[in-house]
Amino acid sequence: MGMTITEKILAAHAGLDHTEPGDLINARVDIALGNDITAPIAIERFRKIGAKKVFDKDRVVLVPDHFVPNKDISSAMQAKVVREFAGEQELTYFFDAGEMGVEHALLPEKGLVLPGDLVIGADSHTCTYGGLGAFATGTGSTDLAAAMITGEVWLKVPESIKFVYKGKLNPWVEAKDLILYTIGDIGVDGALYKAMELTGPVIEALGMAGRLTMANMAIEAGAKNGIITPDETTEAYVSGRAVREYSFLKSDEDAVYAEIKEYDVSNIEPQVAFPHLPENTKGISEVEDIRIDQVVIGSCTNGRLEDLRSAASVLKGNKVAQGTRLIVIPATPYSYRGALSEGLFDIFLDAGAIISPPTCGPCLGGHMGILAKGERAVATTNRNFVGRMGHPESEVYLASPVVAAASAIMGKIAGPESVISKK
Amino acid sequence: MGMTITEKILAAHAGLDHTEPGDLINARVDIALGNDITAPIAIERFRKIGAKKVFDKDRVVLVPDHFVPNKDISSAMQAKVVREFAGEQELTYFFDAGEMGVEHALLPEKGLVLPGDLVIGADSHTCTYGGLGAFATGTGSTDLAAAMITGEVWLKVPESIKFVYKGKLNPWVEAKDLILYTIGDIGVDGALYKAMELTGPVIEALGMAGRLTMANMAIEAGAKNGIITPDETTEAYVSGRAVREYSFLKSDEDAVYAEIKEYDVSNIEPQVAFPHLPENTKGISEVEDIRIDQVVIGSCTNGRLEDLRSAASVLKGNKVAQGTRLIVIPATPYSYRGALSEGLFDIFLDAGAIISPPTCGPCLGGHMGILAKGERAVATTNRNFVGRMGHPESEVYLASPVVAAASAIMGKIAGPESVISKK
Repeated sequence: MGMTITEKILAAHAGLDHTEPGDLINARVDIALGNDITAPIAIERFRKIGAKKVFDKDRVVLVPDHFVPNKDISSAMQAKVVREFAGEQELTYFFDAGEMGVEHALLPEKGLVLPGDLVIGADSHTCTYGGLGAFATGTGSTDLAAAMITGEVWLKVPESIKFVYKGKLNPWVEAKDLILYTIGDIGVDGALYKAMELTGPVIEALGMAGRLTMANMAIEAGAKNGIITPDETTEAYVSGRAVREYSFLKSDEDAVYAEIKEYDVSNIEPQVAFPHLPENTKGISEVEDIRIDQVVIGSCTNGRLEDLRSAASVLKGNKVAQGTRLIVIPATPYSYRGALSEGLFDIFLDAGAIISPPTCGPCLGGHMGILAKGERAVATTNRNFVGRMGHPESEVYLASPVVAAASAIMGKIAGPESVISKK
Repeated sequence: MGMTITEKILAAHAGLDHTEPGDLINARVDIALGNDITAPIAIERFRKIGAKKVFDKDRVVLVPDHFVPNKDISSAMQAKVVREFAGEQELTYFFDAGEMGVEHALLPEKGLVLPGDLVIGADSHTCTYGGLGAFATGTGSTDLAAAMITGEVWLKVPESIKFVYKGKLNPWVEAKDLILYTIGDIGVDGALYKAMELTGPVIEALGMAGRLTMANMAIEAGAKNGIITPDETTEAYVSGRAVREYSFLKSDEDAVYAEIKEYDVSNIEPQVAFPHLPENTKGISEVEDIRIDQVVIGSCTNGRLEDLRSAASVLKGNKVAQGTRLIVIPATPYSYRGALSEGLFDIFLDAGAIISPPTCGPCLGGHMGILAKGERAVATTNRNFVGRMGHPESEVYLASPVVAAASAIMGKIAGPESVISKK
């Protein structure tokens, strides 16, 4: 019986020839990742157990990205715990201060997560790296502590659902719209503990940024992981930046899927996920007048240079609406510097935006643009749960960078078409 | 009997020909200023009293600059109160989102505070505008509320101390060093409820940024105000940006001073104010090895474009020391944009700095770089009280932009000379 790419990666890391859904395996991890929220708990466990050294100083990666630059004393203390541990353990990959970026945008850029890898991270959006053809999943801090010590993780092999995207993309439809549409279709538990294997000609034509965006939101459908078969696009991205060997795997012809879903993307328009679940999607044409207070363009979902370019293409020559605040947060130093050197900073500032240094910031209600009671935001982030970005009576609408940019200009939820027709 | 410039401004605003120290006067205010910490309290009082309209919508200025972009729900609620009040009162000068800057850097740039003005602000560093030849002082939120309604304020006319700065400035000595040295000399209550009139050829040769820096810290010697006689430098700065008429006043030859202090600046080297008071100053040559965790370049004291240029002149071609974090915070959109277009962003980023959007941020322990227990910072800010920038067991050392920049490179408190000798 054939295997899916997910099953193959798990088998390879468990030292097995074959795995199938439901198998409990003990697998070797290529990277174990923690941030300033989760790593301090893992470090505490690590010390409590009496561990002395991490299993491999090249494979435990720590990124204090959530509340940095620190917003208060307790977040400063958390960052300090991570910083001191990284120093004491002589970790090769610890990203602090000016080197810091949003973890899930940063690790691919640094060539630390690679095709064929098994990556665990104490952060739910660790699934992002599936865009590279890796198995990557979020765990709790206890699993992270165990992996930091042993280099291994216990996993149950998930069933896979195959998603096939065909047809011609409509204007202004981006990867974010495809994944929002998919979650809208299957629901926030539509892929519970399953692998979402994203396939088809539309995926094959996507750049790496779009692939990472789609895999990033697999967790929002409840999936264990999202995964895309690596190809020439992947090779072009990882070659030159990979810090290790990597392997391109793909699902067998006779691999078994729990389900196969097919989408004709020509039926998909720019999407907006309404409060308070990512599954509450509507096409932009169905959205009535909804006035907004804030727009956030950034995060591990859509804070890459490609996303900033998309947003800038809509913002260029326009002004943010009176009464609306636009916060642009390049996810990594590379994206920040790229936006600067390509002149996107000028476009953002001319429009009236605030540009933040890299941080997860407001996405999780951390800092850098928290919403007051009754305020509404359009965000390129990944979750719009109750109170996610601030007050329990605030609202978050999820969208792509171009829809977010258009909404900032219009002061209400709007697609790029309305900006053009405004001119 | 002659009058000082402070007495003349107060007399003019009280409708009197003459005032002298100790007089209680009711004076007209040209500008009443509030921020996101103090304005909400003033607005609450305003409403409680049953007031309907501010005395003049061109003269009540609100700047939510302390916790913006908002760091949490309560700061978001405060900003919302200010925003809604500004909208309801149709205030002409409300600076939000991309237009927001640190109030005391922003108001001079916008031509809103002018020579001869009487300005009150519910923020202790309102005294900054004395650099323009205005009488400007910090008040509580209740006084702000009263001024918002009546356009007037009760004041006791302060005695004046005249400071005369003569001699040739040593290399790398900036305005910040002069005011730190002065506070070190007279102590944090050395000018209690007095006007600090800063005079002499060294002051006359200072640019406007340096004058604002010096007046900014008058409160750190307990002064009611700091003031510098306006001249051609002032005229060059205000002409073209002034939103109203202004008047150049100066002290009479026979004005009476409580004291006259004279400094030969050739005896002054770059200064560092040690924890936990601005008066704990030492010359840089007396500072032993003090390792630092963080450097902050910004604030109403030293976040102007001129300050960023100073810092960049030292940072250029250098890297921030391993284990030290450098946060650069341009104080206003003008400074931010200027630094960007002049290539200073490249210098900062090459050095490994984080660049924040304009905010008061860490200066008052607000956000954007709060210190953990046991951490030490060098900052171009104005106060180094216990816990000012974070944990009660953290430490802040005050210095100029060039000393801050050099310290970031060296990873310890250091003057620019040590950066040069390192090369």
